[in-house]
Amino acid sequence: MDFDPTIHPHRRHNPLTGEHVLVSPHRNKRPWQGQTEQPQSTDLLQYDPNCYLCPGNARAGGHQNEAYEHTMVFVNDFAAVLPSPGPAAPPEPHHLLKAEPVQGGCDVIIFHPRHDWTLAQLPIPDIEHVIEQWCAVYTKRGAEDGIKYVQIFENKGSLMGCSNPHPHGQVWSLSEIPSEPAKEIESQSRYASRTDLPRSDAPKGPGGRPNLILEYAYFEVSLPRDEGRVVLKNEHWVAVVPWWAVWPYEILLTPYHRHIPSILHLTREEKGAFAAILSQLARRYDNLFSCSFAYSMGIHQLPTPTAPADADGEYSDIHLHLHFYPPLLRSASVRKFLVGFEMLAEPQRDLTPEQAAAKLRACDEVHYLDRPSHLRECLHES
Amino acid sequence: MDFDPTIHPHRRHNPLTGEHVLVSPHRNKRPWQGQTEQPQSTDLLQYDPNCYLCPGNARAGGHQNEAYEHTMVFVNDFAAVLPSPGPAAPPEPHHLLKAEPVQGGCDVIIFHPRHDWTLAQLPIPDIEHVIEQWCAVYTKRGAEDGIKYVQIFENKGSLMGCSNPHPHGQVWSLSEIPSEPAKEIESQSRYASRTDLPRSDAPKGPGGRPNLILEYAYFEVSLPRDEGRVVLKNEHWVAVVPWWAVWPYEILLTPYHRHIPSILHLTREEKGAFAAILSQLARRYDNLFSCSFAYSMGIHQLPTPTAPADADGEYSDIHLHLHFYPPLLRSASVRKFLVGFEMLAEPQRDLTPEQAAAKLRACDEVHYLDRPSHLRECLHES
Ligand SMILES: [Zn+2]
Ligand SMILES: [Zn+2]
Repeated sequence: MDFDPTIHPHRRHNPLTGEHVLVSPHRNKRPWQGQTEQPQSTDLLQYDPNCYLCPGNARAGGHQNEAYEHTMVFVNDFAAVLPSPGPAAPPEPHHLLKAEPVQGGCDVIIFHPRHDWTLAQLPIPDIEHVIEQWCAVYTKRGAEDGIKYVQIFENKGSLMGCSNPHPHGQVWSLSEIPSEPAKEIESQSRYASRTDLPRSDAPKGPGGRPNLILEYAYFEVSLPRDEGRVVLKNEHWVAVVPWWAVWPYEILLTPYHRHIPSILHLTREEKGAFAAILSQLARRYDNLFSCSFAYSMGIHQLPTPTAPADADGEYSDIHLHLHFYPPLLRSASVRKFLVGFEMLAEPQRDLTPEQAAAKLRACDEVHYLDRPSHLRECLHES
Repeated sequence: MDFDPTIHPHRRHNPLTGEHVLVSPHRNKRPWQGQTEQPQSTDLLQYDPNCYLCPGNARAGGHQNEAYEHTMVFVNDFAAVLPSPGPAAPPEPHHLLKAEPVQGGCDVIIFHPRHDWTLAQLPIPDIEHVIEQWCAVYTKRGAEDGIKYVQIFENKGSLMGCSNPHPHGQVWSLSEIPSEPAKEIESQSRYASRTDLPRSDAPKGPGGRPNLILEYAYFEVSLPRDEGRVVLKNEHWVAVVPWWAVWPYEILLTPYHRHIPSILHLTREEKGAFAAILSQLARRYDNLFSCSFAYSMGIHQLPTPTAPADADGEYSDIHLHLHFYPPLLRSASVRKFLVGFEMLAEPQRDLTPEQAAAKLRACDEVHYLDRPSHLRECLHES
């Protein structure tokens, strides 16, 4: 019997985390017995007087938003971490009960004045403003005393617990490197020091070392378009449903032509291509199930702009990339739950990453709300 | 400034996984701005003619349930894995794209004929029947050719994507050890080989070696009741909100008096105490927010009954325990979302594990539905 990844259950390895995902492609046809969700409303005002992110409106704590024209940044009123100085590390109550104080700050970045837009509707120059703001906050926070890590992310949609549709993201800056990037940094360093790898034409990292993400991205873009997992690519960036994806329509977005440690290392042209592919991806996502597509996305890069990234630095093998983790599975109202076996043992998926990539490739890039109404088809559970 | 874990943001280390959780205790008072949930209905029939798990009813694929009196087991009609023999491992398309075939089986265990009951309502002898059925399936599946791991779990509540309230759990048996238990097994082995640990009176594992979970449980039960994280304990078992809990009311349930590799190693008395504490915990959970409390729970133990567990075996340092991962945060309609920063960087919680344990300790053990109606208070968001 020959192994067929579209038929036979198997596990795939994630080289960034060292963990696995169980793939059950034979199960794609099972009837949906789980809970269904209320799709998010797309009937929104351009300006909402009750939105605490709209220009000129009041926020918590008596602040008032400026009449901003592009983006706006403010410190989160309910930040998960507080500025330094903080207390010294406590004595350990027991050798198994370890705690360390954490300091830092949490910022909110409003992407645009329009309450009813998302990355899918924003004109490319406006997405470029968002990228510039990401660069500015990353630079500012990364230079603060004691900050060792800056996480830029966006949490979009009520399915992800985000109740305000006004386009915005967050930046949490911390005095420690969190668990998930720590694993990825270690994997990237270990890969870069491997001497047993087959020869490859992929772009190399500093010191001519192999680079995990560049090697993977190069392999994907070298495959015929209908064979691999590439959804979108342009001159500088590629969006791929990674081999090891856990979420049905998970995306890894990365520059693939040269080693780039952080968003501050992007040329102007690479930034333009970044804005363009973000826009294209957001429109395909929305078109997949004709809804405002929920996700959490974030940027993984050099922990801070001042982290040692020269050829022999601890962080020299990190390559800039973004993860998109969207929960929808079959339609605007059927989501994936990561529960049960997946919490206790291992993530599991039915749809293969190749099938997911094919579905996203088949999506139009004209946003479904911009089509003549008689052409707007609503994709239902099939 | 002295570190105060009820005020200062900090990170805690999970010695079972090696990962961290960010704790933000100062943030407990922030207003809830996220999405709210529909509480699950408790207005259920004792027998539901439309339920595919009720006695005598039809299941998918033309099967009919027996008129079972206690528990019933059947093979899942849409199993995530298929029985062996499977295909041989495929050739690798690239050294970063690793896949291995997986075989196995998925069983459903119905806990009781009553459609409207959960572990919180089941009489203790009926919970003992469930434990016996777990033992039987673990034994049977663990003896099958090529099976290396048996995961017993329960996924309860529509919040966890489970649409059928009829009390039931699942067992997935696989030809590989999944990621999460693999991490925990490694941590337990590594801990057992440590020679730098302070002397402790905690019960030891095989060969007199220190045991991670026994050491931790022993420390918790030795603390004054209102200081630690113990919610419930009896002669043999303890339920604790672990120091490193990610979910607001997460519980680690484990026998704490002697080293026990699996449910097959429990004495009759230890099984009785297991049934009793499961019942108590389920009632406290339901009483916390006066609702049927959703969770995923599962048993971590020796991967299979035949896995080498003698003093020098690969798995000899595993100690039986259960994890309960419930999503509710503040009320029957406000859940925690593990999204954004938590997916990209690190899990985060506001309520400390000590505060969660205190709230669960304060809950009554008389089930809220069994109280006179004028004493049934509905806990709302405060
Ligand atoms: Zn990453
Ligand atoms: Zn465990």
